[in-house]
Amino acid sequence: MQTSKIHRRSSTMPQTTIEQTSAAQLEQILDNAQKASAQWAQTPAAERARIIEHAAAALEAAGDALVALAMEETNLPEARLRGELKRTAFQLGLFGETIRDCACFDARIDHADAQWPMGAARPDLRRILIPVGPVLVFAASNFPFAFSVAGGDTASALAAGNSVVLKAHSGHPKLSQATASIFAAALEEAGAPEGLFSIIFGTASGSAAIEDPRIKAAGFTGSIPGGRALFDKANARPEPIPFFGELGSNNPVFVTGSAAAANAEGIVDQFIGSFTMGAGQFCTKPGTLVVPEDSNFTQILASRQLPAVHKLLNERIEAGYLQILAQLKAHAGVEVLAQHPEAENGQIQPTLLVATGEQLLADPQALQEECFGPAALVVTYKDEAQLLQIAGSFSGQLTATICGEESDNVAQLLFTLQNKAGRVLWNQWPTGVSVTYAQQHGGPYPASTVANSTSVGTAAITRFLRPVAYQGFPQSLLPAALRDDAEGTALLNGQRR
Amino acid sequence: MQTSKIHRRSSTMPQTTIEQTSAAQLEQILDNAQKASAQWAQTPAAERARIIEHAAAALEAAGDALVALAMEETNLPEARLRGELKRTAFQLGLFGETIRDCACFDARIDHADAQWPMGAARPDLRRILIPVGPVLVFAASNFPFAFSVAGGDTASALAAGNSVVLKAHSGHPKLSQATASIFAAALEEAGAPEGLFSIIFGTASGSAAIEDPRIKAAGFTGSIPGGRALFDKANARPEPIPFFGELGSNNPVFVTGSAAAANAEGIVDQFIGSFTMGAGQFCTKPGTLVVPEDSNFTQILASRQLPAVHKLLNERIEAGYLQILAQLKAHAGVEVLAQHPEAENGQIQPTLLVATGEQLLADPQALQEECFGPAALVVTYKDEAQLLQIAGSFSGQLTATICGEESDNVAQLLFTLQNKAGRVLWNQWPTGVSVTYAQQHGGPYPASTVANSTSVGTAAITRFLRPVAYQGFPQSLLPAALRDDAEGTALLNGQRR
Repeated sequence: MQTSKIHRRSSTMPQTTIEQTSAAQLEQILDNAQKASAQWAQTPAAERARIIEHAAAALEAAGDALVALAMEETNLPEARLRGELKRTAFQLGLFGETIRDCACFDARIDHADAQWPMGAARPDLRRILIPVGPVLVFAASNFPFAFSVAGGDTASALAAGNSVVLKAHSGHPKLSQATASIFAAALEEAGAPEGLFSIIFGTASGSAAIEDPRIKAAGFTGSIPGGRALFDKANARPEPIPFFGELGSNNPVFVTGSAAAANAEGIVDQFIGSFTMGAGQFCTKPGTLVVPEDSNFTQILASRQLPAVHKLLNERIEAGYLQILAQLKAHAGVEVLAQHPEAENGQIQPTLLVATGEQLLADPQALQEECFGPAALVVTYKDEAQLLQIAGSFSGQLTATICGEESDNVAQLLFTLQNKAGRVLWNQWPTGVSVTYAQQHGGPYPASTVANSTSVGTAAITRFLRPVAYQGFPQSLLPAALRDDAEGTALLNGQRR
Repeated sequence: MQTSKIHRRSSTMPQTTIEQTSAAQLEQILDNAQKASAQWAQTPAAERARIIEHAAAALEAAGDALVALAMEETNLPEARLRGELKRTAFQLGLFGETIRDCACFDARIDHADAQWPMGAARPDLRRILIPVGPVLVFAASNFPFAFSVAGGDTASALAAGNSVVLKAHSGHPKLSQATASIFAAALEEAGAPEGLFSIIFGTASGSAAIEDPRIKAAGFTGSIPGGRALFDKANARPEPIPFFGELGSNNPVFVTGSAAAANAEGIVDQFIGSFTMGAGQFCTKPGTLVVPEDSNFTQILASRQLPAVHKLLNERIEAGYLQILAQLKAHAGVEVLAQHPEAENGQIQPTLLVATGEQLLADPQALQEECFGPAALVVTYKDEAQLLQIAGSFSGQLTATICGEESDNVAQLLFTLQNKAGRVLWNQWPTGVSVTYAQQHGGPYPASTVANSTSVGTAAITRFLRPVAYQGFPQSLLPAALRDDAEGTALLNGQRR
């Protein structure tokens, strides 16, 4: 691993400071990453899986120290951080298991066919996904483990067979350095090539790295302006590269008339639980609850005592939250519906706002802006036509939720929402994103910069692969998964055996 | 179908002229395309397949008239055009067959699992690929059927469940109009929604369409500057969209020492056949033949009479060819090795140039520029180290070929080439791209703008799809392919049944 040096700086309290990565350090890191990527790409998938699993175990073993550092830097509670570390290790293991299985490399074998009805004989063609090369990952602020150093983007890029250069998030530098040291050492200890995983610090080094021709793809989780700026850089390169950014989402929830009549109290409880969970610092926090005007939702919500939440991740996040919340409160169409009583004491506390459907539709951009933190907007709709109009007014989303009864006719609402979002939910809540095979975390812009990709779940691995077809090759020169004796696992003539 | 009007303009010869699409016409076309796309997306795949196959048959039935028009506008010979039309109809049929099978929609079912080892219970999650919405396709000059109006991009976008707005290529406007009329009428006759397929004419309308928010993806086959300009527009939109461009390729061929010793005459014959086929107007034309310095390749090539070729597609293509050829000839490192004897009579004829490995490596950008037409460069290498250096000097390619003996140690050469190209070949030739399941036509930039996509073969359909996960939905609201009774065809817990 290449890292910036840690040194101590005198201060009232002794403090560890992480140096920004210099241009010379970055040059060495990228050079090593390129060499390591070529070696790693030629390492059998089962061997890669073993090495990744070893590194996952090393992180879990260092849990006490890492969680303590994370608590110090992020204000997140211990139980949440321990759960997140477990999720991170689980994710590394699941991705290892996935590449062992080989199915994720989409092997296809078409034997030569002189009678192929296209009008010309078909040659022997065999296609498989191969690693793209060194991947640059930008860590997130809100998941110091699961979307940071050894998180989802890193796990999927490594599983795919690429080296990783990780740009640490400025919100938790000491944790990043410590995690990276343990992770990189464990990878190398298990047999990974030197420089397979490196960490860099500082905006300048991230910016330089994304423009470097040795970097072949990038992953990112963060804000819309930050992500868009990097996306633009990735596309402006002489050789553009794919930039998988997960940028922002409002995650609206739509309540049908019959669900409101049947279960308003239950929906209110769950909604409050979901938008205040983790102090509202999830990209899948439900930011808007759309309810029938002729229901008693607003009365119920106004009567509830909103729960206290822990401090936000850092001062920058808190300042951003307060700014957007102030904008929303100042909007002519918006009123405060409920607020935690201690909100005026200076500490951040949950806030619920309310607007009518007309008001939302009059200024969707302002009223649908993501407010990262424990705030949400309740919107009342007057009839089904307006409900559909509101659904249609949203931009691309990570999630969209329907609270309904099975007898409701929601076909049109569901069709509208699936065209807006990567994940649609029925009577469940979008926070808590399961890491599994069928997960989809990513949707039309600005939810993602590449809507047909996911950053959670095993399909995330595919982002960092690309197909190559081998025409007319002898068995001995083919990748193992494309040889005749692997036909049991490949797609033969487009079909499974 | 929305089309521009055809009208006659007086001239010495009566002539049909196609009007450029006006802004008002484009507005109507895009509006209809958006409505049609929503309807088509909700049409079952088997029904879409039936309608597409009907339209394919209508094109074949009109073969005589269409081929006559194509001959008039492109200078391509009848047999080639008849074969290309057959390929076009075959491709539509194959894509129909592929969506009937459903496997291309990658259905995944994860049942709820309270014991899911991530640390939190897993909800019921089911994921499938859905259509992205209206697709804009830019037709190519060199395949007036197979990469034009009803060609590969159109076929894959329609099969995926999207409407198509086709920007005609200026090289064959009458053929485009005639093909579009037949194709759109046949689609509607078979039951497709009105406006599912439309054609537009003119650079201005193509440029306006790619910036329109109703367009959700684009396909393109053409030049690097033209493709890059459109790629940049697609990415600069407030909501960027994927732009699948196939831009340019040199398609180098590498001959090992032992292959040169065993079969120089045979390789020369096949190389000449491949680079002059269709007057060299294929994106997979082998533009560079890299041979051992100590072989008799240059003598054999110099002694061969290069075949006569038919006229190039049009004057613009001819002018471009002559310009790049003149640049190459004027380059200090390049000499003319062989030229068809009639070359000086004004008609375009094949030309072979030669340079040493040193010369190529001294100015790779100039000597590897694609020369679209019947020209190629022979490069001599002095040892294996230089061969690898030459291989490493190429930018992204559609194809790269090795002529070798099975006993050769080509592992490093093959690894280098598979990291450069989307398709690698062994003792075969890159021209003639088979339409099949395992085909890959696309590679690192500038071969493609999206390296992990193909524009030929059934995997092309996936470009115009994106995943959606359904969480906690009752059976009645799920897409058919995600219901419990479809488990036989879906991936269950990441595994095939």
